Amino acid sequence: MTKRIWNFSAGPAVLPEAVLNEARENLLSLGSTGIGILEHSHRGKAFVAVYEETEALVRDIGQVPGNYKILFLQGGASTQFAMLPMNFLTPETTADFLVTGAWAEKAIEEAQLFGKTHVACSSQDRNYCYIPQSLAFSDQPAYVHYTSNNTIFGTEFATIPTVPAGVDLCCDASSDIFSRPWDVSRHAVIYAGAQKNLGPSGVTLVIIRDDLIERAPKTLPTMLQYRTHAKNDSMYNTPPTFAIYLMNLVLKWIKGQRGLESMAALNQRKAGKLYSYLDQSQLFRATANRDSRSLMNVTFVTGNPEVDAKFCAAATKAGFDGLKGHRSVGGMRASLYNAFPEAGVDALVEFLRAFEAEGK
Amino acid sequence: MTKRIWNFSAGPAVLPEAVLNEARENLLSLGSTGIGILEHSHRGKAFVAVYEETEALVRDIGQVPGNYKILFLQGGASTQFAMLPMNFLTPETTADFLVTGAWAEKAIEEAQLFGKTHVACSSQDRNYCYIPQSLAFSDQPAYVHYTSNNTIFGTEFATIPTVPAGVDLCCDASSDIFSRPWDVSRHAVIYAGAQKNLGPSGVTLVIIRDDLIERAPKTLPTMLQYRTHAKNDSMYNTPPTFAIYLMNLVLKWIKGQRGLESMAALNQRKAGKLYSYLDQSQLFRATANRDSRSLMNVTFVTGNPEVDAKFCAAATKAGFDGLKGHRSVGGMRASLYNAFPEAGVDALVEFLRAFEAEGK
Repeated sequence: MTKRIWNFSAGPAVLPEAVLNEARENLLSLGSTGIGILEHSHRGKAFVAVYEETEALVRDIGQVPGNYKILFLQGGASTQFAMLPMNFLTPETTADFLVTGAWAEKAIEEAQLFGKTHVACSSQDRNYCYIPQSLAFSDQPAYVHYTSNNTIFGTEFATIPTVPAGVDLCCDASSDIFSRPWDVSRHAVIYAGAQKNLGPSGVTLVIIRDDLIERAPKTLPTMLQYRTHAKNDSMYNTPPTFAIYLMNLVLKWIKGQRGLESMAALNQRKAGKLYSYLDQSQLFRATANRDSRSLMNVTFVTGNPEVDAKFCAAATKAGFDGLKGHRSVGGMRASLYNAFPEAGVDALVEFLRAFEAEGK
Repeated sequence: MTKRIWNFSAGPAVLPEAVLNEARENLLSLGSTGIGILEHSHRGKAFVAVYEETEALVRDIGQVPGNYKILFLQGGASTQFAMLPMNFLTPETTADFLVTGAWAEKAIEEAQLFGKTHVACSSQDRNYCYIPQSLAFSDQPAYVHYTSNNTIFGTEFATIPTVPAGVDLCCDASSDIFSRPWDVSRHAVIYAGAQKNLGPSGVTLVIIRDDLIERAPKTLPTMLQYRTHAKNDSMYNTPPTFAIYLMNLVLKWIKGQRGLESMAALNQRKAGKLYSYLDQSQLFRATANRDSRSLMNVTFVTGNPEVDAKFCAAATKAGFDGLKGHRSVGGMRASLYNAFPEAGVDALVEFLRAFEAEGK
């Protein structure tokens, strides 16, 4: 079998090898069923068991309270950007946004189609290199929306933003869900595309407080009402069964790592090693403000786009894949999601050090 | 490895073993990339190559003319039921529906949210056991919609319905796409959830005529405009990469079977064997009208629900899975999509014969 290389992709991203090996063993027959995991009817006993276990794992690992529904949808966070305002915003009401990057911008654009929007804070003034501390909400927001981690700019909320009592808080946690403990009960909705920390692309996890579900207008298209999916346990139509199965395996792997406290410690250690190196480097520097740094996506530059390009080319050649920064910002980005191995960070730091030494 | 059993599931459904084996070999490393197919960035060279090849295969196998765009979306046919009217229907215009079963009913319900609808024909009077021959269109339909194959009732259009010149015809081909040659150029849009004939659940193939794409209002949510996906080659957001990869393998397999003429002949032969048996049986009978029979889903009953249940239980025990009819109609259903092996049909006929003989 081909040797696996270090995959720093921002998503779809590296998955635990144990997960891939288990999926491999079940492609032609899920357990002893004689039918592969891709081929099982979503309404059959075998898949329903996978589904129910996955839901229970999300509840257990995320400590999701009983009054929240767990949904597995399609269309990614980009579809949630529209579903949230379609379900919870009206032309007369206002949704507040914490604008910390491109994904928040996209979310606000979709909301503008359905109601009023208000920018409660923005770090656009310095190309989103920090998480604003001071928030100014509108009078009675229908809800407040934030992006917990910003893949492109390498920033992350260190704590859950505080909103006025009784205000519903919605979180796009696509790129850091289950990378650390995060209090679900302080949110109305948490959603996440799976392709960074939870599995492959093609499934979106939505955790939504019960009482919100019936609030949406019944004139929305059936597939765009949370109600539809809540009532049918995400099986109104055929769900992305394999993506849910993969999430099941990833969640079991997280559980095997002793849950989110332990994941958080590992993620701190991994990102910490890289930031420590960058902070003392004469060639490279991290782009995000120190207090706003992401543990998931470490963005850095040399300050010289030519040297950046030379570094990326050398890194690719040496077996470090996906280090090129997002096309909208340039530089480098090392994505260190849950499944990215610590040994890969050590190897990268070593490589950065050697590259720097060589240039001297 | 566990012996594989006969999987008659209506979808997700059986996939060719060669496809599963190839996917298996690429889970930990796609070719020699050192990164598994699930873990490749959708914007990386390796996946883009898979994507482009898949698109080319659809065009080649389906003989899709150059003025049609090929899209890979999420949300299944159920999402298309809403996207079509959102993009192409207005409160002042009328969409016509050929109502041949539950899926057509769902499609019409979504269209009613956005404009006027007209039933051009319906076989509801006899529980959808036939495909109506006579169609009565509205004056100037915005488009005409039909379901080429009805999984639940086991009926299938033998030929493409004729619409007035210049009228756009849209086809939900979820359950029989690429099971036979089907003239794309007579359609405005053909769409299909992948989980029957094309791959796993989680990706929807949409083939849409170029000139339609810009017709949609730009005030729709970004993800619900065909324009968005057409402009970005289905990569506006992260596509379901693994599902597209699987479709790629299935399409190559179809090509290896010498294309759609050859698939059609195989499907005729498979379904023909089962219908021939049913037509001479004293115990079982096919439920669909002879001229409307589906080659994909053969529905049959004994006429006695208790005997049906007894048969299903015995069949499951003998390694014939998924033969129970849809919960809304009862009886039995054998789904014989492209990938279902002819040997499985032979085995089923043998089993039916033995069950019938035993009861005498």
